[in-house]
Amino acid sequence: MRTSHSLIVTLLSSSALVASCNVSAPGDPATENESPAPLPALSSWNDGETKSAITSFVERVTDSSSNEFVPAAERVAVFDNDGTLWSEQPLYFQLIFAMDRVKALAAEHPEWASEQPFQAVLENDMEALAASGEKGLVQLIMASHAGMTTDEFETIVRDWLRTARHPRFDRAFNELTYQPMLELLDYLRENEFKLFIVSGGGIEFMRPWVEEVYGIPPERVVGSSIKTVFEMNDGEPILRRLPELDFIDDKEGKPVGIHKFIGRRPIAAFGNSDGDLQMLQWSAAGDGARLMVLIRHTDATREWAYDRDSHIGRLADALDEANAKGWTVVDMAEDWSRIYPFE
Amino acid sequence: MRTSHSLIVTLLSSSALVASCNVSAPGDPATENESPAPLPALSSWNDGETKSAITSFVERVTDSSSNEFVPAAERVAVFDNDGTLWSEQPLYFQLIFAMDRVKALAAEHPEWASEQPFQAVLENDMEALAASGEKGLVQLIMASHAGMTTDEFETIVRDWLRTARHPRFDRAFNELTYQPMLELLDYLRENEFKLFIVSGGGIEFMRPWVEEVYGIPPERVVGSSIKTVFEMNDGEPILRRLPELDFIDDKEGKPVGIHKFIGRRPIAAFGNSDGDLQMLQWSAAGDGARLMVLIRHTDATREWAYDRDSHIGRLADALDEANAKGWTVVDMAEDWSRIYPFE
Repeated sequence: MRTSHSLIVTLLSSSALVASCNVSAPGDPATENESPAPLPALSSWNDGETKSAITSFVERVTDSSSNEFVPAAERVAVFDNDGTLWSEQPLYFQLIFAMDRVKALAAEHPEWASEQPFQAVLENDMEALAASGEKGLVQLIMASHAGMTTDEFETIVRDWLRTARHPRFDRAFNELTYQPMLELLDYLRENEFKLFIVSGGGIEFMRPWVEEVYGIPPERVVGSSIKTVFEMNDGEPILRRLPELDFIDDKEGKPVGIHKFIGRRPIAAFGNSDGDLQMLQWSAAGDGARLMVLIRHTDATREWAYDRDSHIGRLADALDEANAKGWTVVDMAEDWSRIYPFE
Repeated sequence: MRTSHSLIVTLLSSSALVASCNVSAPGDPATENESPAPLPALSSWNDGETKSAITSFVERVTDSSSNEFVPAAERVAVFDNDGTLWSEQPLYFQLIFAMDRVKALAAEHPEWASEQPFQAVLENDMEALAASGEKGLVQLIMASHAGMTTDEFETIVRDWLRTARHPRFDRAFNELTYQPMLELLDYLRENEFKLFIVSGGGIEFMRPWVEEVYGIPPERVVGSSIKTVFEMNDGEPILRRLPELDFIDDKEGKPVGIHKFIGRRPIAAFGNSDGDLQMLQWSAAGDGARLMVLIRHTDATREWAYDRDSHIGRLADALDEANAKGWTVVDMAEDWSRIYPFE
């Protein structure tokens, strides 16, 4: 559900095949206001300009004697998800989910054996999948994400997260969150910020697990969506997911999504790619203190290193603008002493 | 932005002409979690079955030793706005706003003098306006709600609320909220409910004032919307409102809106018309304790009395279902000792 789909699918790799496993639950905050067990604030952030920029901003907007004070109700902070809160390589985890789903459904769809893009997924033929282009990607999303009720889809996502393994780390996908960002979410919550995810990913792909993993409740998730329709099914009301795009929450869509779902301009925004540029521009253009942050993937050893030439998470225009405007740029290799919670 | 538009406009009345005034600010809760000055809980609710049904439900879901206990994170309560939190007669206040807006813009649109539905509005010719039907109503909404930036529209709404007066009560429109419902919102907040408005009205018509009036922040408002687009205007990012419907949050749209914006099924739902039926059905169908409430407009003296035969706020099918299923029905004349805060 992003642009440059045909480029994205060139990155599809057969290593995305999944195996069964159990996921250790990473904490279970009962509400968004309850904090997990206390850690030293931002302990996985190395001291330096980046960390200081964040803490200085938070101190200024929360100090009621500061002329930059912002009331708690207006302390809205927005976070991209893929590449900002969790990893996005070797390709967006939701695409791996979609491919796994097609494989799981293949027995019910014998016609897929000779129909693209499904044949390509089933044969792990990444060249053929890439050749199916954006049209093929949308077909893949609709076949894997639509047709069922919203309750059924939630169960499918939960089951996938419980069983699927990331090909490089052999961990559940939602274990590949960034420890420094989890600490940052805690730190902002302790300072009475309202935290929202604003992702190009599917809103209903995120909602089943983000509260447990990030402590961000489902009502604070903005994302891309397909349409749903209300129906009575033998006297039982259901919402059925339709194979029709509703909203693409990426690039110019992100400020639109922020305005639609939140209705208040953020004072802090965190992203990692050109897909986040307009969200940062929109957030930056408000009055008063602002914190704009870009995460740079600079650590090929512990995570991945990519920016201008990457098809996933391409970072070029947004980085140029960050440098020109003095936004905060996180260098993962330099600024983070730890990447994942499981390290 | 509701169905039966041609019927609705038959109710348009020249008494909706407005005059200038000052509005007394009805409290200013800094955040959703701060309560206004304490009052005896639900003091404008007469003792009886209705009040008991509400308090019994709240006691059960908040008692951690009860088998009906619901964690705070899941205590989602949804409220219709028109006719549930504030009045909706002689017609939806947003329609009065649209007509006032057309009058304010008429000097820039000389062609409106001879073009329907605008001519009808300008001449207070309600028969001609009714004859323009649903098409005319949509034209009226688009002419009054689209074309400007989101910031500009917010200012327009705020200015209207500060100056426009309700024809019967000679009060600002957002003084016509129901005192018992304000108390109920406080009571639920004190019991750690998450309160959302789910209205057929325009989301951006409500957001500028609901936090001040109801203590419900903008990010907890679900409603109908038109599309917006992100643009750079001389280097300044703006969101421009387009004359194109995005989402109608009424009838079957309400559960869709709840799922899209909140992503969690409510355990309590409050409405007053057939437009709320599907929201109540969807909320009622979840597991565990549930509270479904319909407000009946039964007080022609203090407010208005209407139900089955009304074109605004028609209540027939939802009342039948409430009676059949034992949902709680509020009789305004019987159950409320006070209607408005200004009484």
